[in-house]
Amino acid sequence: MITSADNEKLKTIRKLQQKSWRTKLGLFSAEGEDLVAAAAAAGREPALVLRAGEDVEPELLDAVSTLGSGTRVIGVYKQTWAQPEGDVLVYLHGVEDPGNVGTIIRSAHALADATVVLGPGCADPHSPKAVRASMGSIFARPPARATLNALDGQKVALDVTAERELRDVEVTGRVVLVLGSERGVLPAGAREAAAPLAGAWEADAREAAAGGVEEILRVRIPVHADSLNVAMAATVALYEVANRMAADG
Amino acid sequence: MITSADNEKLKTIRKLQQKSWRTKLGLFSAEGEDLVAAAAAAGREPALVLRAGEDVEPELLDAVSTLGSGTRVIGVYKQTWAQPEGDVLVYLHGVEDPGNVGTIIRSAHALADATVVLGPGCADPHSPKAVRASMGSIFARPPARATLNALDGQKVALDVTAERELRDVEVTGRVVLVLGSERGVLPAGAREAAAPLAGAWEADAREAAAGGVEEILRVRIPVHADSLNVAMAATVALYEVANRMAADG
Repeated sequence: MITSADNEKLKTIRKLQQKSWRTKLGLFSAEGEDLVAAAAAAGREPALVLRAGEDVEPELLDAVSTLGSGTRVIGVYKQTWAQPEGDVLVYLHGVEDPGNVGTIIRSAHALADATVVLGPGCADPHSPKAVRASMGSIFARPPARATLNALDGQKVALDVTAERELRDVEVTGRVVLVLGSERGVLPAGAREAAAPLAGAWEADAREAAAGGVEEILRVRIPVHADSLNVAMAATVALYEVANRMAADG
Repeated sequence: MITSADNEKLKTIRKLQQKSWRTKLGLFSAEGEDLVAAAAAAGREPALVLRAGEDVEPELLDAVSTLGSGTRVIGVYKQTWAQPEGDVLVYLHGVEDPGNVGTIIRSAHALADATVVLGPGCADPHSPKAVRASMGSIFARPPARATLNALDGQKVALDVTAERELRDVEVTGRVVLVLGSERGVLPAGAREAAAPLAGAWEADAREAAAGGVEEILRVRIPVHADSLNVAMAATVALYEVANRMAADG
């Protein structure tokens, strides 16, 4: 039973709150019974697991928790990265919010059994907030890392300024859904706010042209008002693509 | 310029962090330029607005902010409730998380220009977290309050145990999407976790039977694994229904 805050295991868990330490150690932590169970269900062995009252004094575990309410268990796992494989991929460019990255990993797993590919400028999917938002899908479907032009398949980018609607996309082979930023989907008329996104598209388009890869198809989700955030847009697009594939298959 | 924390306006803003005071005063607060702008765009006059450096010392405004980072502006508004009208309604039963309630208000507005109807056991849509999650849609499309059997239209409940798929629903008139709890959509096999939801359905079904209203159609969103949360399920269902109405219209 750990009874001192100076314990090395507790120190490691505290360090893993920082991205620099997560990267250096190649580890990340998951808090709570649900996440630890999700890891086990995915066949992932913890590098370390501490349970309140069994392995460690509850107050000491609470002190290294990132949850305001404390936690009963913390597991530490090796970071793993997937290859960008499968019928559907979700490529993220500059999605800075860890909650959105985690939510998209969860949606991709649930709706299309798809892998999320992290491009430049995305939040660390192994941060506590992203891991929580993934609801354990980080274990079952770990993300991949790649640039857009390294991915094969029909690239479909969500863009509020597109003419074509999402539902008019034909699904014939692998689909790579491309989402550009926190403001990935915006209402028509909000061009100004979309400027950073447009910048990202242009960079991707240049990259695509330079790499000789196929064109990126731009589609929009019809909106009546306001904006959807990037996680909601991804969820809708994953539903539509998975649905289409199921109907055609 | 307010220079004392004892100022009555600041005290009011602090009180509005509590639901009891929000209900008593019939007011709620919105923090940040985006939300205050969204209120103005919806034609909503603030009962009170305080800007850092203009109306109040910045530190004093930060001290009554619910955001960790503080804020530049806080507006106070009268709570308004809509009538449950329109082609699409979203009825929520026992959705306790304010972030989910706010997100669904936002999705309903964006995807279907729909009003969210709050049934029993839902989080206060005027809490700071719900207002933020609504991204201003709380002003443009304020929620309604009603019981399920007070609503006319085809009731379509999302339920992971349903046989019928969401995409197989026929849309002929008004649709009332019914979502049951935080665990509104669950993977097959997670019956135990779905029990509270099933309870809600049974209560609604009894209520429906007693009121002589039409049957509730149960549909599921096909999932490969894991669960979607209630906000993601609502977003997908709103997309599908709005899409279907646009195609038929």
